[in-house]
Amino acid sequence: MALKRKLRIGTMLNGSGGNMSSWRHPKAVADGSINIGHYRKLAQKAEEGKLDFLFVADGLYITEQTRPNLLNRFEPITLITALASATEHIGVVATLSTTYSEPFTVARQFASVDHISGGRAGWNVVTSPLEKSAANYNKGLHPEHDLRYKIASEYLEVTRGLWDSWEDDAFIRDKESGVFFHPEKLHHLHHKGEFFSVEGPLNIGRSPQGHPLIFQAGSSEAGMSFAAREADAIFTRHLTLKDAQKFYKDVKNRADKAGRDKNDLFVFPSITSFVGETEAEAIEKYQQVTELVDEKAALDYLGRYFDHYDFTQHPLDEPFPDIGDLGRNGFQATTERIKHIAKNENLTLRELAFRITTPKDDNVFIGTAEQVADSIQEWFEAEAADGYVLGNQILPEGLNDFVDKVIPILQKRGLFRTEYESTTLRGNLGLDVPRNRFVSAQDKVHNR
Amino acid sequence: MALKRKLRIGTMLNGSGGNMSSWRHPKAVADGSINIGHYRKLAQKAEEGKLDFLFVADGLYITEQTRPNLLNRFEPITLITALASATEHIGVVATLSTTYSEPFTVARQFASVDHISGGRAGWNVVTSPLEKSAANYNKGLHPEHDLRYKIASEYLEVTRGLWDSWEDDAFIRDKESGVFFHPEKLHHLHHKGEFFSVEGPLNIGRSPQGHPLIFQAGSSEAGMSFAAREADAIFTRHLTLKDAQKFYKDVKNRADKAGRDKNDLFVFPSITSFVGETEAEAIEKYQQVTELVDEKAALDYLGRYFDHYDFTQHPLDEPFPDIGDLGRNGFQATTERIKHIAKNENLTLRELAFRITTPKDDNVFIGTAEQVADSIQEWFEAEAADGYVLGNQILPEGLNDFVDKVIPILQKRGLFRTEYESTTLRGNLGLDVPRNRFVSAQDKVHNR
Repeated sequence: MALKRKLRIGTMLNGSGGNMSSWRHPKAVADGSINIGHYRKLAQKAEEGKLDFLFVADGLYITEQTRPNLLNRFEPITLITALASATEHIGVVATLSTTYSEPFTVARQFASVDHISGGRAGWNVVTSPLEKSAANYNKGLHPEHDLRYKIASEYLEVTRGLWDSWEDDAFIRDKESGVFFHPEKLHHLHHKGEFFSVEGPLNIGRSPQGHPLIFQAGSSEAGMSFAAREADAIFTRHLTLKDAQKFYKDVKNRADKAGRDKNDLFVFPSITSFVGETEAEAIEKYQQVTELVDEKAALDYLGRYFDHYDFTQHPLDEPFPDIGDLGRNGFQATTERIKHIAKNENLTLRELAFRITTPKDDNVFIGTAEQVADSIQEWFEAEAADGYVLGNQILPEGLNDFVDKVIPILQKRGLFRTEYESTTLRGNLGLDVPRNRFVSAQDKVHNR
Repeated sequence: MALKRKLRIGTMLNGSGGNMSSWRHPKAVADGSINIGHYRKLAQKAEEGKLDFLFVADGLYITEQTRPNLLNRFEPITLITALASATEHIGVVATLSTTYSEPFTVARQFASVDHISGGRAGWNVVTSPLEKSAANYNKGLHPEHDLRYKIASEYLEVTRGLWDSWEDDAFIRDKESGVFFHPEKLHHLHHKGEFFSVEGPLNIGRSPQGHPLIFQAGSSEAGMSFAAREADAIFTRHLTLKDAQKFYKDVKNRADKAGRDKNDLFVFPSITSFVGETEAEAIEKYQQVTELVDEKAALDYLGRYFDHYDFTQHPLDEPFPDIGDLGRNGFQATTERIKHIAKNENLTLRELAFRITTPKDDNVFIGTAEQVADSIQEWFEAEAADGYVLGNQILPEGLNDFVDKVIPILQKRGLFRTEYESTTLRGNLGLDVPRNRFVSAQDKVHNR
């Protein structure tokens, strides 16, 4: 990496926006989560702003209480493939669970998107926080938290091995001689591990990025260790600059201890911005969003993190009830954070529910474009972030405001690119193509 | 369906073409199977010809002996999503195995493509003929032939149930009242069967086609019964008009016995055409293709159907050796057909291998555009076919010739459409949107 750190920015694409009641906003596209035209426009807007990547979240279980954006949404692999076809430079990152899929299929699908997009695919590796996902996947029990990360590590090991099945220059395609490929550049994996047994080789050649980019979003102990070892980028969330700095330092140290160059691991906290012509207008925009959420919906939203717990059974104006370890096996870091807020800020159940649905923490930047740019610069320079994932509360408004108003300021300050550096996501992030495990370091020079 | 049968035509998209050595052809795109620009052009050419659908085959296991087009190819779901984004009217059909996937994921992905494409998705349901696929999917044993179809039936039952999770008019999205959906129009599946246990509901709304179209390609006893019960279209292959007629009648009768309208089940044999300005030029084109294949490659190609059997251990100029039931659990119908040809035509091993790699059977139409159109009309009118899947030997040449030269003749004869009738694949094929299983027939009128 160059000595000077470069700011990176990606954006969540989550239907009508990140707020659980975003669809009710006058400017939101109410059917955004299943509207492909809406997504194409968002993708193109993000590319107009020279953003690094589009980020698509996922989940594998819904109930009547699930928030609207998650009830009826595109499947991430197909969505990023469609968005790759509507754009030219921006990275496309899809969430996919290692707990409920097969590495051979997933390795193929991401390699295929990487080929289709010309090297712009990323995979947000999750282990599925929702306990009940098991019920949609023929499983009696959802594996417990730390076991899921053990499975994920081996899964990723298999996937990376499959991505290396073919060396970059394996294919000759000499019509005259009839030699299509070098057999010695095709590698069988023969993986036999604790959880997986996969022979290989993969039936798709090594993709432009070698390995699609690996994102990881866990902030639990097991999640952080996993990310520090395995991920190219960590998607995280912190309510204060100080917490973000602490996390940043912690995870970079873990990467260092795992023998990696810590500059090769990006830390991307999520931020939300409300941009106004004046600070007062921005505050008004924020206020308008908070008013979209009703009480029942806020309690349902809170309950989802705690294994779909029904909080309506408790008095709303008393302190957050003691419900034990519920939800811990799913959203471990998130439930701890919520409990911490409840205690720390001495909130009633009602206050907490609204506090969680429409956050107004330090990572919510509310102000003029200059003020938002200031906060972005501050967190970046204070080593709380290598960049950000924008969690726009309302779409398309949030993204449009950011691209039209904040990006030009960041560009003028020399913090953010004015043109894409590369045609691949790795290239734009300044990351090398990983070495093929079957090629010795010496051969590498010739091979790529 | 209208009284007058309408001719339907789809095309295989298989890299540099259907011939195992197609990539060596001077006019073939040698890296066609992994060249997205090539695929986009093919898709647009097919749409220019008003073809009904693009068809993408698949496989889950390769070895050094696998033919070039299958070694390094796009994964089908991602490929059809990209092609849907490059076209507007044509159907996009992907092959996916029920033996090595999970219904919740597959139901989501096809529903998602159906939403993205505006109702043009089709699924070619296969059970994976290659024994060794198990080695890539953590399985000790590949399930035996008839068991795979039993699994497939239940799999499809689950998938269809998931596709019905949401009624068509479930989503209200009333910003004022805050009502996003009718809870009574959301349905949990609660499926508990012999092979699958899936609770549901699916986290994506019912797609424009209700259910993406179901293709099926098995021609074995179990395969035909399955198709007659479950499929909207059968992809098959016959070497003579008489065999095709027999199959057509048989499968339509089976559909009838299964209580279906036999006109709702399309029979699409694969055909190949070589089109020349004169018949002599067409024969020359055919000849040129036969000369691409070398002996070793032809024997490998043959071996793949017989569980990757190595035929080079046998004398090439003696009759086809007795190798028992090898391959029967995989390509049951195909291996029987090959053995039948060997015996019937009294071929040596060498002759058989070349015979199989570059077929010149009655379903290979070689001649002027008029002659090819004559054969197409003959098979169609003789009730050997409701339409065809083009298995072009060389791409893009084969498809270009067909669209530029044969389609206009079929259109002039009133056999083939000059404009798409609909924006969905079902619409173009004249098939209704299936009723939602959770909606009574009486409600249906209001529901859709």
